[in-house]
Amino acid sequence: MRILITGFEPFGGQSINPSWEVARALEGLPLPQAQVRSIQLPCVFAQAAAALTRAVDELQPDIVLALGQAEGRSDISVERVAINVMDARIADNAGAQPIDQPVVSGGPAAYFSTLPIKHLVSRLRAAGFPASVSQTAGTFVCNQVFYALQHALAGRAVRSGFVHLPLLPEQAAHWPGPPMPSMPLGTQVAALTCALGSLLDGSAPRAGDVQVTGGALN
Amino acid sequence: MRILITGFEPFGGQSINPSWEVARALEGLPLPQAQVRSIQLPCVFAQAAAALTRAVDELQPDIVLALGQAEGRSDISVERVAINVMDARIADNAGAQPIDQPVVSGGPAAYFSTLPIKHLVSRLRAAGFPASVSQTAGTFVCNQVFYALQHALAGRAVRSGFVHLPLLPEQAAHWPGPPMPSMPLGTQVAALTCALGSLLDGSAPRAGDVQVTGGALN
Amino acid sequence: MRILITGFEPFGGQSINPSWEVARALEGLPLPQAQVRSIQLPCVFAQAAAALTRAVDELQPDIVLALGQAEGRSDISVERVAINVMDARIADNAGAQPIDQPVVSGGPAAYFSTLPIKHLVSRLRAAGFPASVSQTAGTFVCNQVFYALQHALAGRAVRSGFVHLPLLPEQAAHWPGPPMPSMPLGTQVAALTCALGSLLDGSAPRAGDVQVTGGALN
Amino acid sequence: MRILITGFEPFGGQSINPSWEVARALEGLPLPQAQVRSIQLPCVFAQAAAALTRAVDELQPDIVLALGQAEGRSDISVERVAINVMDARIADNAGAQPIDQPVVSGGPAAYFSTLPIKHLVSRLRAAGFPASVSQTAGTFVCNQVFYALQHALAGRAVRSGFVHLPLLPEQAAHWPGPPMPSMPLGTQVAALTCALGSLLDGSAPRAGDVQVTGGALN
Repeated sequence: MRILITGFEPFGGQSINPSWEVARALEGLPLPQAQVRSIQLPCVFAQAAAALTRAVDELQPDIVLALGQAEGRSDISVERVAINVMDARIADNAGAQPIDQPVVSGGPAAYFSTLPIKHLVSRLRAAGFPASVSQTAGTFVCNQVFYALQHALAGRAVRSGFVHLPLLPEQAAHWPGPPMPSMPLGTQVAALTCALGSLLDGSAPRAGDVQVTGGALN
Repeated sequence: MRILITGFEPFGGQSINPSWEVARALEGLPLPQAQVRSIQLPCVFAQAAAALTRAVDELQPDIVLALGQAEGRSDISVERVAINVMDARIADNAGAQPIDQPVVSGGPAAYFSTLPIKHLVSRLRAAGFPASVSQTAGTFVCNQVFYALQHALAGRAVRSGFVHLPLLPEQAAHWPGPPMPSMPLGTQVAALTCALGSLLDGSAPRAGDVQVTGGALN
Repeated sequence: MRILITGFEPFGGQSINPSWEVARALEGLPLPQAQVRSIQLPCVFAQAAAALTRAVDELQPDIVLALGQAEGRSDISVERVAINVMDARIADNAGAQPIDQPVVSGGPAAYFSTLPIKHLVSRLRAAGFPASVSQTAGTFVCNQVFYALQHALAGRAVRSGFVHLPLLPEQAAHWPGPPMPSMPLGTQVAALTCALGSLLDGSAPRAGDVQVTGGALN
Repeated sequence: MRILITGFEPFGGQSINPSWEVARALEGLPLPQAQVRSIQLPCVFAQAAAALTRAVDELQPDIVLALGQAEGRSDISVERVAINVMDARIADNAGAQPIDQPVVSGGPAAYFSTLPIKHLVSRLRAAGFPASVSQTAGTFVCNQVFYALQHALAGRAVRSGFVHLPLLPEQAAHWPGPPMPSMPLGTQVAALTCALGSLLDGSAPRAGDVQVTGGALN
């Protein structure tokens, strides 16, 4: 099994991004019967999706896990759906701030994750890691990469999806405004190792997902 | 112009639902060159979408605004996208609790609102009503109705979408747990009147939307 | 019965303050057997407490209700306790930003409200107004005024206390950052009228308070 | 230097309490020129304060740090003030649920922490631990113990106070409702070790505190 993990470079004035720290920690991971390759994506609309699809073409992975930073979230947040829109609240690292542009012109409105998201959340919780299904990956570069990933792999037998990660404590310690939730790097890496393991140990449903709720009323 | 407004019956143990209270208050609204018709939808997966599409077929509206209650939200929340999934955290009013079922088998993953959502939010804020774009309508009956609406009208020259409303103060006054945001009925009705007016006064872009951000980082 | 209500001038870059809007709306209130006098306090540490105690000396009120704006709160928030500290997160309207200074040098660490706070919350909720007991009035000018009020009236048979109010919708509509809860002026005035009425109609316990929980775990 | 640390037994249906896990981990801590003793307090109004003051009498500590669990908080939360009230939202571990009872009959309304709370928060943040000053310790057993501690040591040259801790990830993973912030035990222990160190290394002001804001607007 070839596994591709992506993380982002820092953005929004930060000097670190938990998604890349986790991704690169996972690269050396000794997983039975699997080989992990991690790449860093620029937080730049004009480059991120292309860098991702290039890596997918080169590596021909069986599983792709794209990771991103989610300030304000407190748990491992497994995304359900990517939408075909870029609507930036702040400028990206190249200074671009697209408003309501499609990720892929003429592409479908959305793609669902092809990861067993409920299985992942159940296994993470059972192992003591706070985790939940998220119904939105936002409209910034994270969602763009998630959409581009699912678009590139549509119809192919690759399981792919996106996971949002909390801030690191070092970031939260200096964040302006009210206290922000965080999770240390070691815990994040352990959680993602658990998640990857649950995709490789034969426990995940081959198609579909486990039947537990992960919905939101609104 | 024929305008169809929908609201829901109470659910989740409540005896009132702001979406229906607002919808029925709007029915009598004296709008220039427009006629408002309001219907109540059951909070029942097996019936809500069918009731909605029946009303659309009968009325042949030019604009459809579906409304729903969103406990925990503090403003007029204009939804961007409906997704093809029903994943119920609680049972609906008929006792059904579907997990990860499609709203429409074989339907696309999502539909975007065809309302000018940024225009609506801008006009509401300019008039002093708290409002924002929301990137998820959840996965309960609200999202189902929103998806079914957009599916039924796909490709037709009807502007349609979904707006989530805060609790009424009377509900928040007795809500268990920490304090919940609310908005009085009169304010909600005034806000929706403002929103409808902004669709009828010629100020809304005929196609597309105004170019202001309404995105989310995550 | 003579009732003194205080509200604050706008601060923090705002052009309106719900506490003063409510206070002045209450002044004309036709309450049986009571006379309401409202004054505006400057949001200035060096002046607010003195202005308040001067008004108390002049009016010799039987009840004093000090009001303040509480961005981020969603309900009528009846304060339990004032503490003897000024610790300003932002500058006041005169540019002063005291850090850990006492309100009254040598004064006690705190004063409890002498209003029947549980009675007020119960009556507000019963009338459909969201309300709760708050365990902290912060450390800005609101808390200073609350402390100075209780200090001035300590040992006297006057019921006095502080109530924090949500933003007005007009403020929340333009607030930076994520959506903020709000409550329209009419609802705030009606809630405070209800609260005052519940102090005058003989239903409030003469001493102590009703025995219902209003506590916080942390 | 003799240091007394207290933590609580689990309560509210939990089988673990981070405050005790942290306290007992600190007991073995090799601190230069200091000796740490940790005790567990029952989450019982009728016993907790007495158990604490007994330990203070026996150990005659120079520093006392009482710890408690604070579900919903995301950082190391250094309490500023204890108030003379017990107002329980839930029953304690003995089934008691006092409403508006004083911790100490005839005691002052409140006591301030005699720890340098701003110094602690500054040092924690500088070391990468999320931390903030809290203006309320609630009205449950945590606040009772904090008040009883400050009452017992009033006027004595002992520095004492209370720190609230986030849930452990293992608790947050199974908490009902929306995602809850958490912090792993190792991070909590490291943070408290940092805090204790900052009280022993001569950097803390001998009297008073560093002049940085830690206040709240409301």
